[in-house]
Amino acid sequence: MSIDPKNPLKVLHNAINSTILIRLKDGIEYTGRLKVCDNYMNMIIEDAKEMLDGTVTAKFGEIFIRGNNILFIKPQAV
Amino acid sequence: MSIDPKNPLKVLHNAINSTILIRLKDGIEYTGRLKVCDNYMNMIIEDAKEMLDGTVTAKFGEIFIRGNNILFIKPQAV
Amino acid sequence: MSIDPKNPLKVLHNAINSTILIRLKDGIEYTGRLKVCDNYMNMIIEDAKEMLDGTVTAKFGEIFIRGNNILFIKPQAV
Amino acid sequence: MSIDPKNPLKVLHNAINSTILIRLKDGIEYTGRLKVCDNYMNMIIEDAKEMLDGTVTAKFGEIFIRGNNILFIKPQAV
Amino acid sequence: MSIDPKNPLKVLHNAINSTILIRLKDGIEYTGRLKVCDNYMNMIIEDAKEMLDGTVTAKFGEIFIRGNNILFIKPQAV
Amino acid sequence: MSIDPKNPLKVLHNAINSTILIRLKDGIEYTGRLKVCDNYMNMIIEDAKEMLDGTVTAKFGEIFIRGNNILFIKPQAV
Amino acid sequence: MSIDPKNPLKVLHNAINSTILIRLKDGIEYTGRLKVCDNYMNMIIEDAKEMLDGTVTAKFGEIFIRGNNILFIKPQAV
Repeated sequence: MSIDPKNPLKVLHNAINSTILIRLKDGIEYTGRLKVCDNYMNMIIEDAKEMLDGTVTAKFGEIFIRGNNILFIKPQAV
Repeated sequence: MSIDPKNPLKVLHNAINSTILIRLKDGIEYTGRLKVCDNYMNMIIEDAKEMLDGTVTAKFGEIFIRGNNILFIKPQAV
Repeated sequence: MSIDPKNPLKVLHNAINSTILIRLKDGIEYTGRLKVCDNYMNMIIEDAKEMLDGTVTAKFGEIFIRGNNILFIKPQAV
Repeated sequence: MSIDPKNPLKVLHNAINSTILIRLKDGIEYTGRLKVCDNYMNMIIEDAKEMLDGTVTAKFGEIFIRGNNILFIKPQAV
Repeated sequence: MSIDPKNPLKVLHNAINSTILIRLKDGIEYTGRLKVCDNYMNMIIEDAKEMLDGTVTAKFGEIFIRGNNILFIKPQAV
Repeated sequence: MSIDPKNPLKVLHNAINSTILIRLKDGIEYTGRLKVCDNYMNMIIEDAKEMLDGTVTAKFGEIFIRGNNILFIKPQAV
Repeated sequence: MSIDPKNPLKVLHNAINSTILIRLKDGIEYTGRLKVCDNYMNMIIEDAKEMLDGTVTAKFGEIFIRGNNILFIKPQAV
C-alpha cells in the first residue's frame, strides 16, 4: 500500500474492516474490527474487547470511542 | 443497517430511542434510552441509571450529559 | 413536549424557570431555578443550593455557572 | 431587572460596579467590585479579597482574573 | 484612568512598563516589568522574580510567559 | 539542510523515512521510522519500540500516534 | 532592540540562533539554540540539554518541542 506522507488518517481509513488496537490515555486498550472512523478519530469498533495490562476486562458487540481520549492506534492488530 | 465508514456519529443518531450505555472519563457509567444527541455528543438520556463498578448508584427520569466528558458509548446496550 | 432528536440544548432552554440539578466534574452539585442558559451551557441559577454527597454546603440567591465544568444536568429536578 | 433567557453574560455585564464573588476551579474565592468583564469572563476586580475555606488569605487593590479558571460567579455578593 | 467595562485586556495594555504580579495555575508567581502583552495574555516580563509562597526562587533578565497558564494578574504590583 | 525559521513542522516532514524518537506527556517514548506526519503532529511510525525509563516495553509493526499527546520529538534518533 | 508592545512572539523570533531556556508545565527545562519557532510556540532546539532541578538529565543534537506544553521561555539564556 502506498501512503500519502502528509495524511496519517488515511491509514486509519484503510484499516476499516480489519482488527485494530486502541490505547487510551489512561492505559485501557480496546481491540476489535474498525467499522467507522472520522477525522476526529471518533470510531465504531465491532466485537470489541477491553483490556487492562493485557487482561480482557469486558467484551462489547459494538462501541463508539471518542477520539480525543486516544493515545495511539495499532492499525493491523492481527 | 448499512453504515457510512466515515461518519460514526450517524450510528449514534440511529440509536435514538434505544437503550445505550455511556462511560465517562472518570469511570462512571450511565444507561438509559437515548432521546437526543448532537454532533458534540451532548445527549439526553431517559430512565437513566448511574453505575459505578457495576452497582447502580442513582436513577434519573431524564438527564442531559455533556459530550466532552464521554469516553465511549455502547449503542445497543440491551 | 415533542423534542428535536438532534438538539439537546433545546431541552435546557425548555427547562427555563423550572428547578434543575447540575453536577460538576468534581462531584459538587447545584440545584435551583434555571433563569438563563446559553449554547455553551453557561447558566444563571436562582435560589441555588450547593450540595456535596447529598449535604447542602451553601445557599446562593443567584449564581452564574460556567458551562465547561458541567458533567450532567437533570432538567426537571422537582 | 428583566433578563434575556439565552444570554447569561448579560447578567455579569449588569453586575459591573457591584460586589461579586468568584470561585475558581481549585476552590479559591475572590470577592470585590467588578469593573470590567469580557465575553470570555476575563474580569478586572477592584478591592479584591482572596479567600480559602472562608478565610481571607490576601488583598489586592485590583486584579485581572482569567476567565477560563472560573467555576461560578455570585453576581450580587453584598 | 477611565476604562472600557467590556475590555479587561485594555487594563493590561495600560500596564505596559509598570511592574505587575502574575500568579500561574500551579501557585508560582512572577513579578517584573511588563514589556509586551498580546490578546492571549502571552507576556514578556523584564527583571522578573519567580516566587513560591512569598520566597524568591529565581531571577530572570527577561522571560516570555505563555498566557494559557495564568490564573490572575495584579496590574500595579508596586 | 537549510530551514525556514518560522516552520518547525517542515523539519518533521523532512524526517520522513528516518528514525525518530517521540516522548509523550506521560514519559513514555516511542522510536521508529516516521512514515506519515500531518500538521497536528499525528504520525504513523513503523517498526516502533515503546520504552519507559530506557527499557523496551513493547514492539509494534506500525502505530498511529495522536499528536496532542506529544511532548517532544527527536527527529534524527539514529 | 525596540519591541512591539502587543507582539511577544516577535521577541521569540528575534531569539533565533541564540540560546534559550524553556520550562515546561511539569518543571522539566530545556536549553539550546533556537532554530525554528512558529506562532504556536512549536520550536526546534539544537544542542539541547534537558534539566530537572538544575541537573542535566539528557542531551539531544536537535529536538522539536510542542508549544502547548510550555510554561515560560527565557529568550537570552547565555
